[in-house]
Amino acid sequence: MSVDALGWRARFLIIRSNKFFEIAVISIIILSAMMVGVTTYDIGPGWMGVLKFFDIAVTVFFLVELLIRMAAEKRFRDFFKNGWNIFDFLVVSASLIPVDESEMVLVARLLRIFRVLRLVSMIPELRILMDALVKAVPRIGYVALLMFIIFYIYGAIGSFWFEKINPVLWGDVSIAMLTLFRVATFEDWTDVMYETMEVYSFSWVYYLTFIFLTAFVFLNMMIGVVLDVMQKEHDKLSVEQGEGEAGEVHWIREHTAEMEQRLERMEGMLEQLTQDQPRR
Amino acid sequence: MSVDALGWRARFLIIRSNKFFEIAVISIIILSAMMVGVTTYDIGPGWMGVLKFFDIAVTVFFLVELLIRMAAEKRFRDFFKNGWNIFDFLVVSASLIPVDESEMVLVARLLRIFRVLRLVSMIPELRILMDALVKAVPRIGYVALLMFIIFYIYGAIGSFWFEKINPVLWGDVSIAMLTLFRVATFEDWTDVMYETMEVYSFSWVYYLTFIFLTAFVFLNMMIGVVLDVMQKEHDKLSVEQGEGEAGEVHWIREHTAEMEQRLERMEGMLEQLTQDQPRR
Amino acid sequence: MSVDALGWRARFLIIRSNKFFEIAVISIIILSAMMVGVTTYDIGPGWMGVLKFFDIAVTVFFLVELLIRMAAEKRFRDFFKNGWNIFDFLVVSASLIPVDESEMVLVARLLRIFRVLRLVSMIPELRILMDALVKAVPRIGYVALLMFIIFYIYGAIGSFWFEKINPVLWGDVSIAMLTLFRVATFEDWTDVMYETMEVYSFSWVYYLTFIFLTAFVFLNMMIGVVLDVMQKEHDKLSVEQGEGEAGEVHWIREHTAEMEQRLERMEGMLEQLTQDQPRR
Amino acid sequence: MSVDALGWRARFLIIRSNKFFEIAVISIIILSAMMVGVTTYDIGPGWMGVLKFFDIAVTVFFLVELLIRMAAEKRFRDFFKNGWNIFDFLVVSASLIPVDESEMVLVARLLRIFRVLRLVSMIPELRILMDALVKAVPRIGYVALLMFIIFYIYGAIGSFWFEKINPVLWGDVSIAMLTLFRVATFEDWTDVMYETMEVYSFSWVYYLTFIFLTAFVFLNMMIGVVLDVMQKEHDKLSVEQGEGEAGEVHWIREHTAEMEQRLERMEGMLEQLTQDQPRR
Repeated sequence: MSVDALGWRARFLIIRSNKFFEIAVISIIILSAMMVGVTTYDIGPGWMGVLKFFDIAVTVFFLVELLIRMAAEKRFRDFFKNGWNIFDFLVVSASLIPVDESEMVLVARLLRIFRVLRLVSMIPELRILMDALVKAVPRIGYVALLMFIIFYIYGAIGSFWFEKINPVLWGDVSIAMLTLFRVATFEDWTDVMYETMEVYSFSWVYYLTFIFLTAFVFLNMMIGVVLDVMQKEHDKLSVEQGEGEAGEVHWIREHTAEMEQRLERMEGMLEQLTQDQPRR
Repeated sequence: MSVDALGWRARFLIIRSNKFFEIAVISIIILSAMMVGVTTYDIGPGWMGVLKFFDIAVTVFFLVELLIRMAAEKRFRDFFKNGWNIFDFLVVSASLIPVDESEMVLVARLLRIFRVLRLVSMIPELRILMDALVKAVPRIGYVALLMFIIFYIYGAIGSFWFEKINPVLWGDVSIAMLTLFRVATFEDWTDVMYETMEVYSFSWVYYLTFIFLTAFVFLNMMIGVVLDVMQKEHDKLSVEQGEGEAGEVHWIREHTAEMEQRLERMEGMLEQLTQDQPRR
Repeated sequence: MSVDALGWRARFLIIRSNKFFEIAVISIIILSAMMVGVTTYDIGPGWMGVLKFFDIAVTVFFLVELLIRMAAEKRFRDFFKNGWNIFDFLVVSASLIPVDESEMVLVARLLRIFRVLRLVSMIPELRILMDALVKAVPRIGYVALLMFIIFYIYGAIGSFWFEKINPVLWGDVSIAMLTLFRVATFEDWTDVMYETMEVYSFSWVYYLTFIFLTAFVFLNMMIGVVLDVMQKEHDKLSVEQGEGEAGEVHWIREHTAEMEQRLERMEGMLEQLTQDQPRR
Repeated sequence: MSVDALGWRARFLIIRSNKFFEIAVISIIILSAMMVGVTTYDIGPGWMGVLKFFDIAVTVFFLVELLIRMAAEKRFRDFFKNGWNIFDFLVVSASLIPVDESEMVLVARLLRIFRVLRLVSMIPELRILMDALVKAVPRIGYVALLMFIIFYIYGAIGSFWFEKINPVLWGDVSIAMLTLFRVATFEDWTDVMYETMEVYSFSWVYYLTFIFLTAFVFLNMMIGVVLDVMQKEHDKLSVEQGEGEAGEVHWIREHTAEMEQRLERMEGMLEQLTQDQPRR
């Protein structure tokens, strides 16, 4: 039985690493995504039935594929050590929940859309891009917090001063922050400004300082953070592969260390020679 | 008495560096910020009273916290050597000024909002971000001055030429500069242009040269300045920690200098050997 | 005959590499481009005839120039090994197709416009810029794919939720994606948002998460990719020319390797010396 | 006489390099700029007379300052070797041209505005910024040319296809290019697109490909070019000052070369020693 199970695992492992199997999975994901897109068009009930059938077929296929990948794992819990596997498991198992009520149709559809994200877990290049993005999150987090503080302060000030001018835009602090986000994206921000300038003619100071603080300085900082993360990634890769400038510097460092040891040995020998010389 | 005072200072120092105390201060800051936000919503007079009580409590807490941090200092004036401490002192002492008149309510509220900025002085990561921002100010200052000159020249020209077309947008040089800032953010700038093009059909040259000068070239320069500052920071950190490319280059430089001295010694010994040789 | 052919080829080679010939070709391209531009203005039928005559003259000139460049090639098929030659061949031969029907006039005009692109193949600096652009395509491709997935998911969600609010903007997944592209460029995106917020008051979450995902993070990633490609180009050039930082690092690496070999030889000699010494 | 002239030159040189003189000149420039700004406001005829008097005073002051700087030069023509001096000369001499006719008032005012640019020639930091900008021009030139070709091609296509839909936006190739510049700045570009999509429903392809080509790819290229120029400036400075990473790499390179020469000498001596040894 154990031998038989091992044989099965080996077969599953072969299936999993098969190039054609991968392409098939990617094709099914794309097909499934296109099906979700098709349902947004006005289509006859006949086609709707066909789509429903295909949807079940895709769900079954994804389930089988997930089970094969699980069975190919040495230990069952190893499967869940990879974040992308957990993601796949959640997406597939969520689509198995039976949804019949009309209210839940939207939720069911959403789950079907998220299947598209499985493309990211299947294509290695996209996985690298996403990993780099996730790595940048903690550092961007603090920039976002600083940004949020600025938005909050300006939002509160705006709400105090401009509420009576236009409650739709400055009603409370949260609405004011949404208005400020609009100003930060330069979306009809002069309309907002001209309105308040009729009452407070110096309110342009409020908008200009806000725009300078957020749009210019902070966007640049964000770019800086992203570039910083990418630079580190690039340097690390370069060191590992031993090519590029950073790789060459690393090579020089190691060889300089070797040369130093060799020179130490040589100096030792030379000292011995010079000590022997006078004796003669 | 002196020993007793020292004992107190030690206790305050322990309180100040206590992790839970820090978290408590941060929580109170956030709570205080949320209170300011809540007052922008329409709330009953009952809640208003509760908020007023909370506000007094927060003010007292901040005062006590500031006094503890002051008392933990070896010498009283050392406290004011740190820019962030001065900032905290100003924010806390400003909120102690009694404000009763209806006119001053807005000012009192503003002071309460600025308490949120104490978050920046409490969280080290935000403090680093702000320090980097402040460091970039002098260099950005000259870019801003150059930008201002361009705005001023175009503003004066625009005011001379377009004043009769639309005095609301081009009335005088300051209004014209605000209109130009709008053009620089691409906010409905074509409406402004089409209006003047009806009178001066070649006025698109004015707008296009202005946009090219400001939006494209100078924004890039600003990015360049920020990246430059970040690069220097990054390099300095890398050299200090002795890791990364810049750190390795620094390591190689120092070890190359050592190797040179060793080689000099070795050459000296070799020369002695070769001079001894012929004598034999 | 063969000798004669060789003589012709040599002459064609001289013509092709002649500076004045190059300037003549560039001038004709610019003239041809201007002719296309002139036809967009309302001009009399007399001038139209002149333009038609010029067009034939330009077509003949381009044909002759192409034939000269082909004849100057050692082997005929070598001509088609260069991508820019294929491009020139297609542009010139396409303009030879006789177009008479009124429907095809637009197509004929388009072909005449594409002649302007020959400027890129004639000016080396533009060719370098285009090559760098083409090199960046594969890496940008994956960023674009990730972007498309995000657009598709948000487009499908938007189409499900907002279709009944405004079918013009959210009718089906493709229209919704066009609307989302508009939101990503910040073009009147608040109008789109305020409309849906009247029905779903929390729909700002949809827009803000979308804007953060696309406009901020991914644009930065794209900049990162482009900078990365440019950096590599720059480093490669620097290594080749042996100047700049990367070039100096490469120089140091090679000379460090030479020094190591020399030190190995020297250590060997020193060991021999120390082994000889005790024997004495 | 010659000695006397020399004495005068020395005195002028002292005046020119005097810090207070520089501050005075800068103050006068700023005052002159503010005067130009004041004339854009509605002011009484009394003030107008005061301004006129001040204007003459400023003109005379600038003339005297220019003559002092000229006289301080060893040889008269050396003065015109510096581009900034030529600029100052043109600005000052242009304001000496008597302008009386009402038509020329605008031109006279313009000349007065350009005096503000003298600030750039007086403040060294601004001069450095401008020089860096001018250095980037040739490389940006080719990017601009490539951009212009894309605009021209799309402009001609747009003019052919969309002229009948809206002649105000697509009348001829130059108007179409202005409309495309508007699209490139994302200014109400969807209004332009929706209008043409009513006739040609697939015209979004035209706009999206144009936006991708220009706004995304080329803007990034421009950033790349600017960063490239700044990087080179930074590296050069770093090498000169012998600090920073590039400076250290340069230091290492030079010292590695020295070490190589020393090692060659040492190997020579060792070879001599080993050749002497067997003889014994």
